[in-house]
Amino acid sequence: MTRTTILTSGPPMPWEKYTGGQRNAILGGILFEGLASNRDEAIAKLQAGEITLAGCHDHACVGSLAGIYTASMPVFVVTNKAADNTAFCNMYEGSNPRRLNYGVYDDGVRDRLMFVQNEVAPVIAEAVRKTGGIPLKPIMKRALTMGDELHSRNVAAALLFLRELMPALLSMATTGPGRIARAVQAMTDDQYFFLRLSMAAAKTTADAARNVERSSIVTAMAFNCRGFAIRVSGLGDTWYEGPSATVQAKLFEGHTEDEITWMGGESIITETIGLGGFAQAAAPALQNYQGGSYEPMIARNRELYRITFGENPDYLVAALDYRGTPTGIDIFKVVESGVLPTMDIGIAGRDGGQIGAGIVRAPLACFEAAAAAYRERYA
Amino acid sequence: MTRTTILTSGPPMPWEKYTGGQRNAILGGILFEGLASNRDEAIAKLQAGEITLAGCHDHACVGSLAGIYTASMPVFVVTNKAADNTAFCNMYEGSNPRRLNYGVYDDGVRDRLMFVQNEVAPVIAEAVRKTGGIPLKPIMKRALTMGDELHSRNVAAALLFLRELMPALLSMATTGPGRIARAVQAMTDDQYFFLRLSMAAAKTTADAARNVERSSIVTAMAFNCRGFAIRVSGLGDTWYEGPSATVQAKLFEGHTEDEITWMGGESIITETIGLGGFAQAAAPALQNYQGGSYEPMIARNRELYRITFGENPDYLVAALDYRGTPTGIDIFKVVESGVLPTMDIGIAGRDGGQIGAGIVRAPLACFEAAAAAYRERYA
Repeated sequence: MTRTTILTSGPPMPWEKYTGGQRNAILGGILFEGLASNRDEAIAKLQAGEITLAGCHDHACVGSLAGIYTASMPVFVVTNKAADNTAFCNMYEGSNPRRLNYGVYDDGVRDRLMFVQNEVAPVIAEAVRKTGGIPLKPIMKRALTMGDELHSRNVAAALLFLRELMPALLSMATTGPGRIARAVQAMTDDQYFFLRLSMAAAKTTADAARNVERSSIVTAMAFNCRGFAIRVSGLGDTWYEGPSATVQAKLFEGHTEDEITWMGGESIITETIGLGGFAQAAAPALQNYQGGSYEPMIARNRELYRITFGENPDYLVAALDYRGTPTGIDIFKVVESGVLPTMDIGIAGRDGGQIGAGIVRAPLACFEAAAAAYRERYA
Repeated sequence: MTRTTILTSGPPMPWEKYTGGQRNAILGGILFEGLASNRDEAIAKLQAGEITLAGCHDHACVGSLAGIYTASMPVFVVTNKAADNTAFCNMYEGSNPRRLNYGVYDDGVRDRLMFVQNEVAPVIAEAVRKTGGIPLKPIMKRALTMGDELHSRNVAAALLFLRELMPALLSMATTGPGRIARAVQAMTDDQYFFLRLSMAAAKTTADAARNVERSSIVTAMAFNCRGFAIRVSGLGDTWYEGPSATVQAKLFEGHTEDEITWMGGESIITETIGLGGFAQAAAPALQNYQGGSYEPMIARNRELYRITFGENPDYLVAALDYRGTPTGIDIFKVVESGVLPTMDIGIAGRDGGQIGAGIVRAPLACFEAAAAAYRERYA
């Protein structure tokens, strides 16, 4: 990372290829970081190579939607002690549907980002440091028994995380309870605060599976504004690309399906390691948020065992009688069965902002492309 | 309530009739309150009428297991604003299986009760007063989407309650964070802290349905050490009695079925208003605590619609596609269908203490007795 680098979601592309909301988000990130004073200057600097674009995944990060990281943004630091690797994720912007990562940048977005940076992050950082670090896996395991699937629902996980921070937060409150209360409010406002921790944790798990010779297991899935792509363990860091995903969405009031647009997304790292859409049976209340009903959610969850290498030894679903979630997507099983990975995602609108949530299916083409490359490499 | 009154669970009986753990719990309550200096003196005072026994339900209280209330015990005060009535519940003793309400009284039990009285209750009381009172129904509704059924699982509800108290707790922390941290720990230690609030809330709901002319709806269910009993709205405050319930339990390690004993219990007020066993489908993780598996839990939950008057307009279960829980047990539907109310309860052991948890079925005899009395009264 450098002062003039902007990270964004999905397989990296030359600047000219970014369109719509993802393009707007990149420009917004540049303005937010103060690297340019207006959009034209930002574009000129991108064209001149004075500002560098890069992919989150190549910097041990994962991006929510457009996935904009700028140099000054605070990040969670999550370590996988078993594999001795680390991943990062920046913080949730808050429940206002207009967010930088949803392709919007204006004074309101800027104020909310500054609130996160100046008010929320320092409190959480101080509390986490006081505790010496919070083990995430116990929280995530428990949250799965409390209605979260740790992608589009993280309500319980946020409260469990808060509980771990409580002694530290209480000791910090002696010098200003209002500041702590505001940070706590931001942590527990809606279902997305903890997602960033879930994403970073999932990234450390997935990264630990990278570069295993002959492994046909998916180690990353990502959107950019032009399509969907996957990485496969035995095929290094090449992205195998396909078209955008297909979606079944429930939209917020006042929005229509023709507004749905793609502007990137890497939160599906959670699905990559057996959470989110791969743990839908754990989160029946998700139907209220992204549509559908519970029996198809269970059926869909069960179907995913057909395309995974195994069952997660840690992430167990009580509604499946404590079976481990389907984990480790095998590209050949996807191609042979035609069963496509299910993912729970937020839906962006043409004019920016979140307009709903839904269930998407990865496109078959990525898996076919990866399978062909695998056959060629390991023939 | 008077200084020399001891409340206990179930239809009240003369002192001589109390046996086993419930008898020990009553004596323990007397010693805890300092009304006698030893068991013999306590027994003598009970026999002389210097100490009065009464039923929790007749004092707008509900008892957990043996349900001992003494005059100095702090209580939650829960008001049903719609019906303008109030109920009370004393506080959870903590996760140690040896508790007064499970028929044990020794120095450890006393110390833990004093900790609740001197350390936990004052902090919660001050915080609740600062907030002006915490609306419980939104917490309970939400907890049902987070894996609680609000009887044997209240994990989410406790965290949601904590969240409501956060601003107050943080402001109180300025004068001593350790004291607040200890109370928070007690609130979030296990699944039972919030049960006392759920019970008091359920009692206010059930009491609002009392004494409705011709109503055949159950308004209370309770155990004492000798059996099970129900009250019916159109039949006043008479208890209709039957034998003890039948149980399917999962016992803590080292315990066996022959140890299972009955020493009272009124937490099943939650089932009376459509929670607990009537909301099992909301709490798949309960199988880990009380045995069974999820499909039978859902089937059992669905079966209970056959014996209830209606569906709860507030308590909705996501796993049942947001159907309201079966609510308002009709004695005639029970008698005609033979479907018996299901209840999630803690299991007491012969030598005192909690030895497990399980699912119990109310005995048919109570409903038959109530149905006969109803026919006589309204013939």
